[in-house]
Amino acid sequence: MKKIGFIGVGIMGKSMVRNLMKAGFEVAIYTRTKSKAEDVISEGAVWCEDVKTCARGRDAVITIVGYPKDVEEVYFGEKGILEHADKGTCVIDMTTTSPRLSVRIYEAAKKAGLYAIDAPVTGGDTGAREGTLTILAGGDQEAFDRCLPVFEAMGKNITYEGKAGNGQHTKMCNQIAIAGAISGVCEAMVYAKATGLDVSLMVDSIATGAAGSAQLKSVAPRILSGDFDPGFFIKHFIKDMKLAGEEAKDAGVNLGVLDYVLSMYEDMDAQGMGDLGTQALVKYYQW
Amino acid sequence: MKKIGFIGVGIMGKSMVRNLMKAGFEVAIYTRTKSKAEDVISEGAVWCEDVKTCARGRDAVITIVGYPKDVEEVYFGEKGILEHADKGTCVIDMTTTSPRLSVRIYEAAKKAGLYAIDAPVTGGDTGAREGTLTILAGGDQEAFDRCLPVFEAMGKNITYEGKAGNGQHTKMCNQIAIAGAISGVCEAMVYAKATGLDVSLMVDSIATGAAGSAQLKSVAPRILSGDFDPGFFIKHFIKDMKLAGEEAKDAGVNLGVLDYVLSMYEDMDAQGMGDLGTQALVKYYQW
Repeated sequence: MKKIGFIGVGIMGKSMVRNLMKAGFEVAIYTRTKSKAEDVISEGAVWCEDVKTCARGRDAVITIVGYPKDVEEVYFGEKGILEHADKGTCVIDMTTTSPRLSVRIYEAAKKAGLYAIDAPVTGGDTGAREGTLTILAGGDQEAFDRCLPVFEAMGKNITYEGKAGNGQHTKMCNQIAIAGAISGVCEAMVYAKATGLDVSLMVDSIATGAAGSAQLKSVAPRILSGDFDPGFFIKHFIKDMKLAGEEAKDAGVNLGVLDYVLSMYEDMDAQGMGDLGTQALVKYYQW
Repeated sequence: MKKIGFIGVGIMGKSMVRNLMKAGFEVAIYTRTKSKAEDVISEGAVWCEDVKTCARGRDAVITIVGYPKDVEEVYFGEKGILEHADKGTCVIDMTTTSPRLSVRIYEAAKKAGLYAIDAPVTGGDTGAREGTLTILAGGDQEAFDRCLPVFEAMGKNITYEGKAGNGQHTKMCNQIAIAGAISGVCEAMVYAKATGLDVSLMVDSIATGAAGSAQLKSVAPRILSGDFDPGFFIKHFIKDMKLAGEEAKDAGVNLGVLDYVLSMYEDMDAQGMGDLGTQALVKYYQW
């Protein structure tokens, strides 16, 4: 593993490209809007004019793009990865996307003589920047083992979750747990404000006990300082929760709290708040 | 502060009595069923035949009983604390109960020449045993300061939350945050099982990231080992969530996720599962 093609150089991707270069990988990049990648190009990443060029001649091709339809396009499109990557290449989708799409990619990759890993991440922009992402990987164990040095350049807590799609399924679990936790945090804060408590003192009082959570730690200070900028976009969280809800239904279970939290965020999105951070959920209530 | 009257010697109360005695307080106790208190009596707690006797001649009277109606009875009943405690006594209700009941006790106590503190706790049976309870106190600052040595014998994270009722309000926030977190954890586990993941591996994979929580840490291992015994009873959690929902509505806010989680637990209670631990929420789904 030496030559990496990297597709999708957004907030997350950019930091991941930097960490790959720092670890000694040769990184070729493609992203929809070249101007957004100028900084990493000046730092040594090689620009490619299209997905095809970015996919050819690499040991691994990494994708981290926006939505399932974007993933479809870069893999299955006319100039897509599956058609143009060299035989033996590992294709790694790190977008949070549909587990069944990951399985489709895995199967198509196999036919094309490629190895596919679904490897969505958690840890946000900070984790990407500091190379401490949690990476949840599905696919063949052998392919995972081959990709491990690549993952280790970008993350810390790297787990092989089993067969293709299982990385995505595990990420769905992560988002489901977050949906519950963040709504609990927001409702606790809304309650505290409405009943006249010192909200900050309340948060400190409960943070170390049974109500403590990573969401409380990250979300409460932002809300208290009036910071509703996206660490994680509402519109992306909606995408994830929808995928999780659909997968759950297909698996025969109904996740009522997830559906409920999703419906609140969808209301907010309909009101034009999709580009705010997930902590803006308090605005759904009186805040 | 030397002589303590302690009313309500259940799982929590018993450990608290032991820690008070260990810290050098003289503890007189009353609880509904004497036989349940024999062990702490043999360890030095003085048995009282009724609430009245337990309330008289003390520096502080602590109550930790089951439901608001029990609190009403021990404070406002015929042989109750408010009528029989010596002037100047601090009365401390550590039951999780209605904030407005705490305010009523506070006001009645004031008229009777007593000081009242509402001081519900978190940390469960383990926290009670180890003297590491989180104590959330409301009332007059002066009374809180006087009671601090008593609290320090039983807890670690002791916070003065402001005026009477604020201890209870803060505890409500704690329960609201837990309602969200525990439902997210259970739905994540249900999803994982339904989609064929290794549930234990999933839990480990997400525990250190943004989905991490005290609930995940405490609840997931119990569910995985099939342990649905109560650390915290569903029936008591229902009581707390009902109180929180009512208070929220009175304060003009509607907490939809809380109401939703409450309705699930109420369904379970109606099916005879109220004596299980809160982690049994997974049984609401397919598990």
